[in-house]
Amino acid sequence: MAENYQDFIDTQVADLRKTVGDQIAINALSGGVDSSVVTVLGHRALGKQLKTIFVDNALMREGEPQRIVKAFADMGIPVDLIDAREEFLDALAGLTDPEEKRHAITNTFYAKVFVRLVKESGAKFLLHGTILTDIEESVAGIKRQHNILSQLGINPEEAYGYTVLEPLKTLRKDGVRETARLLELPGWISERIPFPGPALAARIVGDVTRDRLDLVRAATTIVEEELADSDAFQYMAVLLNDMATGIRDNKREFGKIIVVRSVESVDARTASVTRVPWEKLERMSQRITSLPGVNRCLYDLTPKPPATIEYV
Amino acid sequence: MAENYQDFIDTQVADLRKTVGDQIAINALSGGVDSSVVTVLGHRALGKQLKTIFVDNALMREGEPQRIVKAFADMGIPVDLIDAREEFLDALAGLTDPEEKRHAITNTFYAKVFVRLVKESGAKFLLHGTILTDIEESVAGIKRQHNILSQLGINPEEAYGYTVLEPLKTLRKDGVRETARLLELPGWISERIPFPGPALAARIVGDVTRDRLDLVRAATTIVEEELADSDAFQYMAVLLNDMATGIRDNKREFGKIIVVRSVESVDARTASVTRVPWEKLERMSQRITSLPGVNRCLYDLTPKPPATIEYV
Repeated sequence: MAENYQDFIDTQVADLRKTVGDQIAINALSGGVDSSVVTVLGHRALGKQLKTIFVDNALMREGEPQRIVKAFADMGIPVDLIDAREEFLDALAGLTDPEEKRHAITNTFYAKVFVRLVKESGAKFLLHGTILTDIEESVAGIKRQHNILSQLGINPEEAYGYTVLEPLKTLRKDGVRETARLLELPGWISERIPFPGPALAARIVGDVTRDRLDLVRAATTIVEEELADSDAFQYMAVLLNDMATGIRDNKREFGKIIVVRSVESVDARTASVTRVPWEKLERMSQRITSLPGVNRCLYDLTPKPPATIEYV
Repeated sequence: MAENYQDFIDTQVADLRKTVGDQIAINALSGGVDSSVVTVLGHRALGKQLKTIFVDNALMREGEPQRIVKAFADMGIPVDLIDAREEFLDALAGLTDPEEKRHAITNTFYAKVFVRLVKESGAKFLLHGTILTDIEESVAGIKRQHNILSQLGINPEEAYGYTVLEPLKTLRKDGVRETARLLELPGWISERIPFPGPALAARIVGDVTRDRLDLVRAATTIVEEELADSDAFQYMAVLLNDMATGIRDNKREFGKIIVVRSVESVDARTASVTRVPWEKLERMSQRITSLPGVNRCLYDLTPKPPATIEYV
């Protein structure tokens, strides 16, 4: 991959303009650095011909949909916020198998919500934030990439009459961040830690319910606050399905278990565990075990491989 | 509690001699410091009138039954090794609820195996290693004490014709260790970290099977080797029931999760988390995730309270 990211931007903007012509394109913004870069590149290339949507799937971090829509509005890029929370929660109800959960989210997004929006928009092109690592890991069978339609057996051109464009497919995460900086995205987006496609559902072992989402969301806020000043590549809170014995008000109880994970990585292909200072680990544990029903906080000591970065 | 442990020993030996008279007493040695002290005190007081048994319940650490029997033989104290592995595994089959598992172990021990041995021995007295913390936590409802017959609804005198004697019931763990040193127990026993009554079954969330016992036993060996030179009060490996995503040979897999826990405490009433050096945590993680089927190793960050020291 070329090291000159300004050339990369110029090339992609020109290519998008040429490919889309006077048609309409659409893209889904998740708030992660990949889809944010695609949104800015696409807007530069296509202006009002690009319709950008943000789908609230109920699996987002605290305040995330509003924060992202506002950040892009501040850059002069309008984003439509779509409330699809019920649709996702219904699709996830009763599922515990990781593959089934991922499939339910992907399927609800692509085969239901997004397809509807594409049809309404009349778009002929879909801009997608796939990066090189996604492709490599899908090929290797490690990651069940949430954002590759063919895994759903869908040929988008035949099925929906649109073409998928993947302007970032030659970059890894470090290249995407460099591009984000050159595009003058806000620092909290360009330097943002990765967040998985299935969002907080990737951080719940077992049932994904409203209550369990609320709990992992609150724990995520704590971990992100405490580790915001670290240089870690990615950090998260995970809710396990197992329960552990604890004591509250001098009585035996069974409580929920939250895992904190923080890793160092350049491109997500491999990762080592962050040596978080003990004061910080202890403070996170104290704050997390103050959440209702939680009586254990664990820190993940496993590099990738043999673990993946996420849990589900 | 008196600070003079030599006086304590002399008093207990004299009391035991007086109480037991010319009858037979029996005690079950687990290899922990409490039951080891009771065994030596009882042997000093009663000599051949004390029958000491060690029940192999299939839930022990690697090589434990043989190691303990040999250590006491070296002190001139004969111990009968009873193989009850099948009986315990049968009683645990299919149980996942922590209370049911604990009950199955207690019940198999007291109401089946031990009762049989007491009857065969003709003992009128049972020496038991209950310490003050056990009584306090049973009263408070925190610990479902495995070694208190009344919790099983058994009055031993009426049911089996023997009386329970608890010579250590005024001591906490630090006092028991001081007594162990004065009794010249080997250092590896007097300084031994606590080990729970339900043994490795207390460290398995979910089903207790032969395979899962073998796995948590192997992880326990690693943790005990790595932390042997630490001053921690108690350390352990726990097998969770949840599975996590990992990568092996470049393929996605679901793997088992082992939790490492190490705590600092004086008397087990409260405990703080050991700040284990990162090199050691990383080496434990590397060794543990090399065990078959394991792809996550976590470190428990939770003090007591709100967690207990053990898991089940």
